[in-house]
Amino acid sequence: MHNYQRNRVVIKLSGSVFHNDNNQDQIEVLKKYSSMLIDISNTVQPVVVTGGGQIARFYINTARKLGLDESSLDLMGIDVSRLNAKLLISSLGNHVYPNVPKSLDDISNFMESNKIIVSGGLHPGQSTNATSALIAEKIKANQFINATDVEGIYDSDPRKNQNAKLYEKIDLGSCVNMLLNSSSMAGEYDLMDIVALKVIERSKIKTRVILSSPENIKNTVEGKILGTELVI
Amino acid sequence: MHNYQRNRVVIKLSGSVFHNDNNQDQIEVLKKYSSMLIDISNTVQPVVVTGGGQIARFYINTARKLGLDESSLDLMGIDVSRLNAKLLISSLGNHVYPNVPKSLDDISNFMESNKIIVSGGLHPGQSTNATSALIAEKIKANQFINATDVEGIYDSDPRKNQNAKLYEKIDLGSCVNMLLNSSSMAGEYDLMDIVALKVIERSKIKTRVILSSPENIKNTVEGKILGTELVI
Amino acid sequence: MHNYQRNRVVIKLSGSVFHNDNNQDQIEVLKKYSSMLIDISNTVQPVVVTGGGQIARFYINTARKLGLDESSLDLMGIDVSRLNAKLLISSLGNHVYPNVPKSLDDISNFMESNKIIVSGGLHPGQSTNATSALIAEKIKANQFINATDVEGIYDSDPRKNQNAKLYEKIDLGSCVNMLLNSSSMAGEYDLMDIVALKVIERSKIKTRVILSSPENIKNTVEGKILGTELVI
Amino acid sequence: MHNYQRNRVVIKLSGSVFHNDNNQDQIEVLKKYSSMLIDISNTVQPVVVTGGGQIARFYINTARKLGLDESSLDLMGIDVSRLNAKLLISSLGNHVYPNVPKSLDDISNFMESNKIIVSGGLHPGQSTNATSALIAEKIKANQFINATDVEGIYDSDPRKNQNAKLYEKIDLGSCVNMLLNSSSMAGEYDLMDIVALKVIERSKIKTRVILSSPENIKNTVEGKILGTELVI
Amino acid sequence: MHNYQRNRVVIKLSGSVFHNDNNQDQIEVLKKYSSMLIDISNTVQPVVVTGGGQIARFYINTARKLGLDESSLDLMGIDVSRLNAKLLISSLGNHVYPNVPKSLDDISNFMESNKIIVSGGLHPGQSTNATSALIAEKIKANQFINATDVEGIYDSDPRKNQNAKLYEKIDLGSCVNMLLNSSSMAGEYDLMDIVALKVIERSKIKTRVILSSPENIKNTVEGKILGTELVI
Amino acid sequence: MHNYQRNRVVIKLSGSVFHNDNNQDQIEVLKKYSSMLIDISNTVQPVVVTGGGQIARFYINTARKLGLDESSLDLMGIDVSRLNAKLLISSLGNHVYPNVPKSLDDISNFMESNKIIVSGGLHPGQSTNATSALIAEKIKANQFINATDVEGIYDSDPRKNQNAKLYEKIDLGSCVNMLLNSSSMAGEYDLMDIVALKVIERSKIKTRVILSSPENIKNTVEGKILGTELVI
Repeated sequence: MHNYQRNRVVIKLSGSVFHNDNNQDQIEVLKKYSSMLIDISNTVQPVVVTGGGQIARFYINTARKLGLDESSLDLMGIDVSRLNAKLLISSLGNHVYPNVPKSLDDISNFMESNKIIVSGGLHPGQSTNATSALIAEKIKANQFINATDVEGIYDSDPRKNQNAKLYEKIDLGSCVNMLLNSSSMAGEYDLMDIVALKVIERSKIKTRVILSSPENIKNTVEGKILGTELVI
Repeated sequence: MHNYQRNRVVIKLSGSVFHNDNNQDQIEVLKKYSSMLIDISNTVQPVVVTGGGQIARFYINTARKLGLDESSLDLMGIDVSRLNAKLLISSLGNHVYPNVPKSLDDISNFMESNKIIVSGGLHPGQSTNATSALIAEKIKANQFINATDVEGIYDSDPRKNQNAKLYEKIDLGSCVNMLLNSSSMAGEYDLMDIVALKVIERSKIKTRVILSSPENIKNTVEGKILGTELVI
Repeated sequence: MHNYQRNRVVIKLSGSVFHNDNNQDQIEVLKKYSSMLIDISNTVQPVVVTGGGQIARFYINTARKLGLDESSLDLMGIDVSRLNAKLLISSLGNHVYPNVPKSLDDISNFMESNKIIVSGGLHPGQSTNATSALIAEKIKANQFINATDVEGIYDSDPRKNQNAKLYEKIDLGSCVNMLLNSSSMAGEYDLMDIVALKVIERSKIKTRVILSSPENIKNTVEGKILGTELVI
Repeated sequence: MHNYQRNRVVIKLSGSVFHNDNNQDQIEVLKKYSSMLIDISNTVQPVVVTGGGQIARFYINTARKLGLDESSLDLMGIDVSRLNAKLLISSLGNHVYPNVPKSLDDISNFMESNKIIVSGGLHPGQSTNATSALIAEKIKANQFINATDVEGIYDSDPRKNQNAKLYEKIDLGSCVNMLLNSSSMAGEYDLMDIVALKVIERSKIKTRVILSSPENIKNTVEGKILGTELVI
Repeated sequence: MHNYQRNRVVIKLSGSVFHNDNNQDQIEVLKKYSSMLIDISNTVQPVVVTGGGQIARFYINTARKLGLDESSLDLMGIDVSRLNAKLLISSLGNHVYPNVPKSLDDISNFMESNKIIVSGGLHPGQSTNATSALIAEKIKANQFINATDVEGIYDSDPRKNQNAKLYEKIDLGSCVNMLLNSSSMAGEYDLMDIVALKVIERSKIKTRVILSSPENIKNTVEGKILGTELVI
Repeated sequence: MHNYQRNRVVIKLSGSVFHNDNNQDQIEVLKKYSSMLIDISNTVQPVVVTGGGQIARFYINTARKLGLDESSLDLMGIDVSRLNAKLLISSLGNHVYPNVPKSLDDISNFMESNKIIVSGGLHPGQSTNATSALIAEKIKANQFINATDVEGIYDSDPRKNQNAKLYEKIDLGSCVNMLLNSSSMAGEYDLMDIVALKVIERSKIKTRVILSSPENIKNTVEGKILGTELVI
């Protein structure tokens, strides 16, 4: 019984989607993402993972100055990402599982509903990119779409170097080297991080980094070629 | 064994303490509140209850426009108030219980540590004022200090009426009538709400509404007369 | 997918339904309520909220005399209301979700089963009336039926005044005034309480207070006019 | 550090302690048990396990007639025993751990407080006698006192046979045979049950069955010889 | 709605299924059990309860020598049985509920998925046989199949006595006597234990003890006569 | 009050400590580690983090062949590491917190007991090295001792290259490069991994990799120079 299952896709949404300058616009932005998600859920089951954005940064920066340890700061970021997840849930009505998962086990459980799932971060010490990759692994997703603030992966940071060249494809090894060279260790240019890449490699998850917009995500789900593909 | 117990005091802190305009100032503000709490913890065991403030209002307003139900909106406010609680915990080092309680049972458990406790909201459908009163009841607190943005309870809203008169004392019945008259039902002028007042009445909790500042809270703990006393 | 949803109705059942004098009768009473719930679940999804009744009062009165704080007393009432919820679950077989929800999040989760849900109270400091209203709000119920021991809302307590007049309709404001006048603050005549009314108002929940019986509940679900309607 | 530990004693209290006919008397009864517990806690750390009594029987009998399965009926009994535990907690003030444990892990955690612990049942399929023995095993208690409605273990049921002879000592094997002969399998005469006896045997727990009264429990803790000793 | 329900069968699998000498074989063994479970799930909903086997014995023996109490040792056995449960889940793909239940309430919840459920032990102080019987009771299973390392119940231990005679049927009373005679109390020959038998009796659960193999389990589900039937 | 706090040290223990070939020896091994921990707990508060070892590898390899996803495999490793943690707890009597923490919040809570804490892994996607570093960060430990199967960090794997040279000190950047060169991405030579190093860097945790033995750990706690120091 019950063995048919739509393809599953994990979509990482940057925190910037949730905190624009103009509040009215933001309602519109979230409604457009919601319409797109409802639309694609006819053919795939989407799991969205939301970032923390500027409100996360406010809490993290303040608490760090007050002396909080780094893993507790991670938890603050997770808490804000879950609030962002609830914003998206608010506009998805009956199409979305009504609660935010707190663990990989919750993800598995909620998937049984066949509805859209919206998660924030899960564990301290893991970026939402790494968490997205782990979720993709856990649910054996057919694709992981990392929707970011830039067009894809460049050979240098396009926010600093206007001649930065966009890769159509990049292999994982080169990706790791780029991460390590961009700073001594903690990558500021964090479209991906090493844990995420390791998970993508070990489970051979089909992954693409794109510029976030409802249209781009829909096109990527439908197989159009956008942004940068990670070659495993 | 173990039967000695310091006096216990519940302090409601407005969300505005946590979100000022100037970030640097805010670190200072939180450090001053922390020093005061460590100082008074030599004589009483403080339980602080934090409000949500403007970030709570951002999430609530956005999600409401997107269609979220009111009790889920309450939960968003609680989530933000818990982030604020963690900010205060960040600056209290070893003097504070390191986690934020999620229920009245947690409050009881954490009290056993004899440390300062910092809580956010607890339940949807209850203001942080009502939650503070319930906590005061649960732990049999000797005093509930409601630290607000105004000097105490006025005969009208001092933000709208510059001739508003501050009460030194007010009985609970009058307080209820004021709440109900200020608007049809949900009081905009929410220094107190009806659930909080009902709890204060049923458990005869010594309560004072004051203008929030570290000095004022310390003075109130030490028995100085400030703001408005609720007469039961 | 999965977007069809029956209308949802929240039914508050008085604790007196669960503790009659004659045990044999009580089995019959519960079976009749169960048959009715199974019957109406063909057209609506019912969420039943059970009160505590006399066993709750036994525990609360005893523990209060022994010195327990009021919010812990509330929890005892909730525990008994959950035992009552299990009694009703016992007679609903495969038509009911087999566990009692402990939070609004549980309610949302359990609703996904499309089965009848039976809840007790949820939080200290909230009457089961207030909890019922919050649940109605959370699940966006089409109707809240408060099934009580009297015919509806009267202009005075019909158990004390035999000339009490039943309202067909009453607006929320009048309802609040009645509550406040009946006693200084805590209403003894508790068909509704102020938190419940506030929730009903803020979410515009269609509400009716009726005399509890399987027939009356079924008739109300089917749109017949009984008891008192709250006009928002 | 912290290595000194008082002797630990597990006391099973019959549900009948909590539900007498006369409510006033019952307050007195519970206060006397509480005074005794505070008194003995100067020399031992008591863990009390409460039974369900007549209110448990009411719920179990009603739900069984309505078709609830037996393990869910066990859970109803556990829920009522926890309400009884809260009654006892109500009268122990600051001497008792304020929450009721839900698992053996909770028991271990709460023991760290060095306060009196009051538990109800823990698991379906286990009598409160068996649970008491498991708790005694878990915390390496120095003694398990089963405080019952009779003087100890008789060669036949003293409620039915007025010539029943009280044993001063009885070995575990004889105890098992008595249990099995008294009915085909499920012992009606349930001072002990086979799971409890098996746990007592495997962990060599010093056990005594006595008539419940504050004085008898205190005397047993102090080493006086009362009731029936189980010889392992 | 939703009232059709397949027959439910509880299958206890010995821990020896999960720890063979030859690792390659074991993969095959588990795949055969999985194919059989998927096969029978066309007609019944199986709940499998896994034992702990030799890895459980390793942990229990080591920790007992180090001084751990017996109920914590039980918990170690439960933890290992849950790891075994996850092994079986690994090979059941989309046909199985993806998580291991931790309580009888979880069992009820997970049954709603209509998928195969795989559980380990649940509570300290209860064998996996007793747990299986409790689960059968909780979900009102139509049959409990105890799949063991021997052909069924013999008049003496067939591993020690080669003339041991296999019973086709045995009544519960004789079963209890055999258990008690085989050792003073704790039965080494533990095809069944007294708690399991008590639960089987009180809920009249159709029970059969068989030699474990995929074919034998399938045949038993289909009504073929194998091993020993327990006569209630 | 309560503000004095001993230095805190996090000790990662390899899974090989828990699974030797000779069972008797292993009891001795664990007892020697326990004596050492009790000994050093006079001057520091130790938090031990246990690895999974060969039993973890058995479960992971078997389940991987059966098709389980990688993050669920991580969870199996965590479950086994927690069983190992319980073995160590078994031999630490009253000096150890009796339960195994499940999260960083649990760690904080349990630290309040001032006892030794023994943890296994915490999150899928994180090695026990990374978890140890996160715990060190969370509790602001004064030192992180990684007790391994080799003398420290070599310029190549000493198990493969007998001329491998042991570093007395190594800076974090070189350590990262070594990890990445030893294999394409996932380091087989896993004395440290990139997440652990990143945490060590961001929180400037004093870290030393040593050959595991009770004496070596004690000496390292006392400030003797052994193995390899990580230079931040």
